[in-house]
Amino acid sequence: MTELLTEIGKKAQAAAQELGQLPTAVKNQSLAAIADALEKKTPEILSANRLDLEDTTGLEDKFIDRLTLTPERISAIAAGVRQVASLPDPLGNVERGWTTQAGLKISQERVPLGVVGIIYEARPNVTVDSAALCFKAGNAVILRGGKEALQTNIKLAAVVREVLAAQGLPSAAVQVIQETSHELAQKFMRLDQYVDVLIPRGSARLIQTVVQNATVPVIETGAGNCHIYVDETADLQMAERIVINAKTQRPSVCNAAEKLLVNQAIAAEFLPQIAQSLSKHHVEIRGDEAACQIIGEKARPAQSDDWDTEYNDYIIAIKVVSSIDEAIAHINQHNTKHSESIITKNYQHSRQFTQQIDAACVYVNASTRFTDGFEFGFGAEIGISTQKLHARGPMGLKELTTTKYVILGEGQIRE
Amino acid sequence: MTELLTEIGKKAQAAAQELGQLPTAVKNQSLAAIADALEKKTPEILSANRLDLEDTTGLEDKFIDRLTLTPERISAIAAGVRQVASLPDPLGNVERGWTTQAGLKISQERVPLGVVGIIYEARPNVTVDSAALCFKAGNAVILRGGKEALQTNIKLAAVVREVLAAQGLPSAAVQVIQETSHELAQKFMRLDQYVDVLIPRGSARLIQTVVQNATVPVIETGAGNCHIYVDETADLQMAERIVINAKTQRPSVCNAAEKLLVNQAIAAEFLPQIAQSLSKHHVEIRGDEAACQIIGEKARPAQSDDWDTEYNDYIIAIKVVSSIDEAIAHINQHNTKHSESIITKNYQHSRQFTQQIDAACVYVNASTRFTDGFEFGFGAEIGISTQKLHARGPMGLKELTTTKYVILGEGQIRE
Repeated sequence: MTELLTEIGKKAQAAAQELGQLPTAVKNQSLAAIADALEKKTPEILSANRLDLEDTTGLEDKFIDRLTLTPERISAIAAGVRQVASLPDPLGNVERGWTTQAGLKISQERVPLGVVGIIYEARPNVTVDSAALCFKAGNAVILRGGKEALQTNIKLAAVVREVLAAQGLPSAAVQVIQETSHELAQKFMRLDQYVDVLIPRGSARLIQTVVQNATVPVIETGAGNCHIYVDETADLQMAERIVINAKTQRPSVCNAAEKLLVNQAIAAEFLPQIAQSLSKHHVEIRGDEAACQIIGEKARPAQSDDWDTEYNDYIIAIKVVSSIDEAIAHINQHNTKHSESIITKNYQHSRQFTQQIDAACVYVNASTRFTDGFEFGFGAEIGISTQKLHARGPMGLKELTTTKYVILGEGQIRE
Repeated sequence: MTELLTEIGKKAQAAAQELGQLPTAVKNQSLAAIADALEKKTPEILSANRLDLEDTTGLEDKFIDRLTLTPERISAIAAGVRQVASLPDPLGNVERGWTTQAGLKISQERVPLGVVGIIYEARPNVTVDSAALCFKAGNAVILRGGKEALQTNIKLAAVVREVLAAQGLPSAAVQVIQETSHELAQKFMRLDQYVDVLIPRGSARLIQTVVQNATVPVIETGAGNCHIYVDETADLQMAERIVINAKTQRPSVCNAAEKLLVNQAIAAEFLPQIAQSLSKHHVEIRGDEAACQIIGEKARPAQSDDWDTEYNDYIIAIKVVSSIDEAIAHINQHNTKHSESIITKNYQHSRQFTQQIDAACVYVNASTRFTDGFEFGFGAEIGISTQKLHARGPMGLKELTTTKYVILGEGQIRE
């Protein structure tokens, strides 16, 4: 078992050494060829996907939906690969440069991370997205997806690997771990010698398992207990529009709103209005005492753990606060440092909120649903970082790289 | 035990919330006052230090030397604090900003990490350096130093805390963990809820213990198995000067050279010359077969684990290589990704080496000893990162920060 991983790690490291030196044009040609191959081999990919879908007893509908590929979904995946090809190559960029007192010329240059490990659930699109992004950023990738999607992942990776091999590039740029035991996953998380960074993508539970067990540096992604605070000066029409959008446009994702804080000065006016609108959108309301009192039968009492729960569902918890200070304190105590929004007309409050809230993305008068690589203009993303090291917020190609200092001298020694 | 850490963590988090909002001028005044107080309270600090020095049985001289404070050393520590005051404040800097297709104004702003944990050995200067750097970058710091320096660390932190308290600032900005058991240290490494990043400073063993056990994100620092490769076109006088400097100017530090690779075309000429010079500087030479053959009695055979060993001492291992490709392959296999140098007159070789070597700092014609915050012009450093996430190479104030996206809208919702 350990040997299997060692072999995968060695191959990945050797591939990474080559990938980091590839010209941009070569990488873009390969990506275009990969996109074409995915579309051309749609029937084979669908066959592999059907093997995974043969036995879905016990799986939720939502889960089966994510696992299921269609010709349209494969085309969308291929389009994503073409989009990665169209993005600028982050490598080789000189971030800064200067001359030291000793006369050394230092330049800080962008280089690949090396070997990236992705641990994820049964979402076949992650297989190809990750492979394309890592390849463009000059990294080898080792993929450990959910066992329910194994046949699909093996097939998708095979399509990518065949294209690379046909172009004389190392097929070990993209490797799928085909043994999906938990023991092997645990060992993978401790493969420091070969893996430079691990990115878990999926449920809060998956991410915590990786954080707790990995010795490879981890970028924590995803979990979003996002808040919207409606200030006493808010445009209440705008507030309603944003709350409904942030809660219901796609409730299953990490940047959907899970909590609504309302200033007490406007609670009597705003809460009946938003409660009616939420109910119309089939959203279950859980309120604190003050909110329940105003909303009445449309709300049921929130429990204390509601404030820390990411529902990913048509549920929202509402709390009445006495001031922006209370709102900020509540958010900083309960949030997952993902995305938070204030709805206000007050300049000072907008400043205070953006300065004091501790989160990757802090919004004024906009929906939290914009926290996304495409919406930010980064193109495809490898995840949304909710930790503070390395990258924060949506992560694209640049976040899949690091830097190195190149120092040119003329024989300098240190005195 | 867990309660003690929880209390420390909560206080640190509350302090961090305040520190992140302090104006630069206030922070600089505090740092100046801290420097003054350290000098003024030199007798008290020396008394505390004497308590630690009472029982040093079993400790190495080198270790005792690092632990020992003198009035001069305290002045140097105070000077370091004044230097941190003089550095630009990294906070609030807008790294980039743009308007999205939806009309959202996004700016990426530099903000503190929050709570930084430092785990280190018996070097009292690290206590004050870390406190000053973390404070300037708006972070609270929790210090867990070696038990041999406990009284000194408590006293130094007390001096800093008194100054902060006298200025109405949170003294929990700087906390020393006073219980130095390994069990508590282990729990500290898993204090995710309160600590945003852990920086271990010290021996390779200490750093590995933290990497293996922490669930808090770690920045790996330090261990340096640094190489110098003398190309067949090298100026051999320059090569000798650089090798002697990198090996002997201060052998105990992480950027000292530990290995010398020599191209076979110049081995017969260069090796006797460098062996004589190294011997004159009391450096023990361990060679591969080819090197031993040329050097003769001044060298003894290197064992296979020599190539992976950081000696931190007057020892060097020498290997003859047939080409720059072999040199690069050897370095990438055995290095700790710290600092590597090529001595060459060949343009193409300089390019190949800087491009293909995987390390934080890659030098051409200069000593590896320049990998240092002061030499780079960053001012005081909190360590030298040898990992690829977040920061690579010398880490100063900027590396003690992260960013946050502030997004200003006018009611945008996602379609």
